[in-house]
Amino acid sequence: MTETTTLGVRPLRLDVIERVERRLTAFLDAERERWAAVDGRGAVLVDAVTDLVRAGGKRLRPAFCVSGFLAAGGDPADERIVDCAAGLELVHASALIHDDVLDDAELRRGKPAVHTRHTAEHAARGWHGESRRYGEGVAILAGDLATMYADRLAACLPPAARQVWGVLTTEVVIGQYLDVAVAAEGVADPELSRWVAVCKSGRYSIHRPLELGATLAGRPDLAGAFAEYGEALGEAFQLRDDLIDACGDQAAAGKPVGHDLAQHKMTLLLALAARRDEEVRALVEAPRWDVDALRERLVASGFTAEIERRIDALVDRARGALEAAPIDGAWRRELADMALEVAYRDR
Amino acid sequence: MTETTTLGVRPLRLDVIERVERRLTAFLDAERERWAAVDGRGAVLVDAVTDLVRAGGKRLRPAFCVSGFLAAGGDPADERIVDCAAGLELVHASALIHDDVLDDAELRRGKPAVHTRHTAEHAARGWHGESRRYGEGVAILAGDLATMYADRLAACLPPAARQVWGVLTTEVVIGQYLDVAVAAEGVADPELSRWVAVCKSGRYSIHRPLELGATLAGRPDLAGAFAEYGEALGEAFQLRDDLIDACGDQAAAGKPVGHDLAQHKMTLLLALAARRDEEVRALVEAPRWDVDALRERLVASGFTAEIERRIDALVDRARGALEAAPIDGAWRRELADMALEVAYRDR
Repeated sequence: MTETTTLGVRPLRLDVIERVERRLTAFLDAERERWAAVDGRGAVLVDAVTDLVRAGGKRLRPAFCVSGFLAAGGDPADERIVDCAAGLELVHASALIHDDVLDDAELRRGKPAVHTRHTAEHAARGWHGESRRYGEGVAILAGDLATMYADRLAACLPPAARQVWGVLTTEVVIGQYLDVAVAAEGVADPELSRWVAVCKSGRYSIHRPLELGATLAGRPDLAGAFAEYGEALGEAFQLRDDLIDACGDQAAAGKPVGHDLAQHKMTLLLALAARRDEEVRALVEAPRWDVDALRERLVASGFTAEIERRIDALVDRARGALEAAPIDGAWRRELADMALEVAYRDR
Repeated sequence: MTETTTLGVRPLRLDVIERVERRLTAFLDAERERWAAVDGRGAVLVDAVTDLVRAGGKRLRPAFCVSGFLAAGGDPADERIVDCAAGLELVHASALIHDDVLDDAELRRGKPAVHTRHTAEHAARGWHGESRRYGEGVAILAGDLATMYADRLAACLPPAARQVWGVLTTEVVIGQYLDVAVAAEGVADPELSRWVAVCKSGRYSIHRPLELGATLAGRPDLAGAFAEYGEALGEAFQLRDDLIDACGDQAAAGKPVGHDLAQHKMTLLLALAARRDEEVRALVEAPRWDVDALRERLVASGFTAEIERRIDALVDRARGALEAAPIDGAWRRELADMALEVAYRDR
C-alpha cells in the first residue's frame, strides 16, 4: 500500500508538470500570433523565448514548486499551481538569456544562445550598426519579455505566495550580480561564494520554489523543513554544477564546460579548494588563470573526491530535514528521490 | 466655483505624486539596507536604480496613472494608486537602463548611464574580463532588478488593473525591439514607425497609465475616451521627442540630442519626412547617414514647421476626446492642460 502511494505521487507530479508544459506552449503561441499580426518582426522576441523553452532543460523549478504544492496537500486540479510553475520556468528562461550575455556564453541547451544567433544574423545581413550590440540587445529584450510573461502568469497568486515570488525574483538578480562582481574582482572568499551559491542556486532553484508551492497550498508551516532541505540540496546542486563545469562532459551537459574557469568565476568549488589547497590558491590568485592546471590540480589534490563526500553529506542532511516534516510519507520519499537525482546528475 | 475646482485638482494630483516619491524612496532604502547587510557589493544594483530614480525625470507615467485614477473618481487615500504609480516609474527606470545599453547612450538625466559608469569603474580598477561586458552586465541586472521591484509594487493590483499592467509591460518591450530592428534594417516605413511610436511611446507613456488608473478606480467605461486622448497625445509626445532629438538643445534635454539620427533610428518624424521629401528619402537610404545634412533638410524643407502643425492637430484631437467623457469638468481641463505641457515641452 505504501508502495502504491510511492508509485502514485510521481505520476501525479508529472501530470501537473505536463499541464505546465501545455500552459507554456499555449501562452507563447497566443503571444506569437498576437504580435506576428502587427509585423513579421513582431514575433522575433517571442520566438527567442519559445525556442529556449522548447529546447528542454531540467524544469527543476517547476518540479520543486509543484512538489512543494502537492506535498503540502494542494489540490492537483488547482490551475494556479500550473500558472505559477510555468511562470517560474519563464523567470528561469529570462535569467538564462541574460546570463549568457553576461558570461559571453555561446551555447545553451545545445543550441546557439539568443545573443549569439542574433549577432550572427545581423552580421550575415549586413545591417546597420554593430552586430554585437544588436545581438545582445535582442537578448536583453527577449529576457525582459520572458520576465513580463512570468509576471503575468504569477498574477494569479494570492498575497502570501506573491510575497515568496517577489523574494525569489529579487534574490536571483542580486545573487547573479554578486557572482559577476566576485569574478571580476577575483575575490577568493569561500563564505561569500557560498552565500552566492546559496542565494542564486539553492534558494532560487529548490528552496523558494518548494516554499512557493507550499505557501500557495496554504501550508506556510512547512517553510522551515523545506528551507533546510532546500538550502542543503541547493548547495549540493551548485557543487555538482561546479564539478560538471570543471571536470564534466560537454556533450552530456549540453553547454560549454570549463566556462566558469575560463571566465574567472570564483565558484563555490573553487573557493573551497583555494582555502584548502595552496597550489589552487596560487593558481586562482594569478592574473590569468591556467585552466588546465587548475582542473588537473582539483583532481590530483583529491579535492573533487572530497567534494563528492560533501555532496553525500548535504544530500543526507536534505533527506533528514524531511523526516520530521508533517507531510505524507510518499512525498517524503519522493522528495528524497528528487534529492538524489539533483545531486548526482551529469548535466 | 468651477475655477476653484480647477485650482483644486492639480494640488490633489501633486499630493498623490508626492506620496509616490516617498514610496519609491522608502522601498529602495529598505532594499538597500537589506542587501548591504549581506555584503558591501550587495547594494550596488539597488544604488544604480536609486540614482536614476533620484536624478529626476518627468514622472510622466505616474502623472497620467494618478490623473486617470483621480479623474475616474478614485479615492486619493487609496494606497494602491501610490504603489501602482511607483511601480510604473520603476518599469520606466528599467526600460531606460536597458535602452541605454541598446542605444550605447552614455548620458541619462544629465549623468553617466549605468553601463557607462560601471564600464569605466571596471577599467579604472583593472578588474578581470572585458570592461564593456562587465558594465553592460551590471546595467542588464540593474534593469532586471528594477523590473522585479515594479512587479512587487504591482502585486497590490486587482485582476482587471493587473491585466492592463501586463499589456503595458509587454507592449513596451515589443515596441522597443521593433524600434531596434527597424533601425538596424534601415526600414523607411512610416506606417510601421507610426505603430512603433504609438506602441512604445503613446500607449506606454500616456494611454495605458491613464487606463490603468481608471481601471484601478473601477471605471473601465473611460477606456475609450482615454484611449483616443492617449493615442493622439502619445503621437504628439513622440513627434516632440523626435523634434527635440533632431533639432533640440542638449542642455535642456539633459541627454545627447542627435542621438537617434546618429543611431540610424527611423523615427516617426524621419519616416514621415522620407515619405514627403525626396531629398530626405535619399539621405536616409544612404548606407551612412549625413546627420547635419538631414537636420538642415528637415528645417529647410519646412517639414519641422509642418510637424508643429501636426502636433497642434493631435493636441486638439486629444482635448476633443475628453469633451464627451463622463468625468468632472475640472479633470477635463486638467488633462487638457497636461496635453499642452507634454506636446510643447523642451525636454
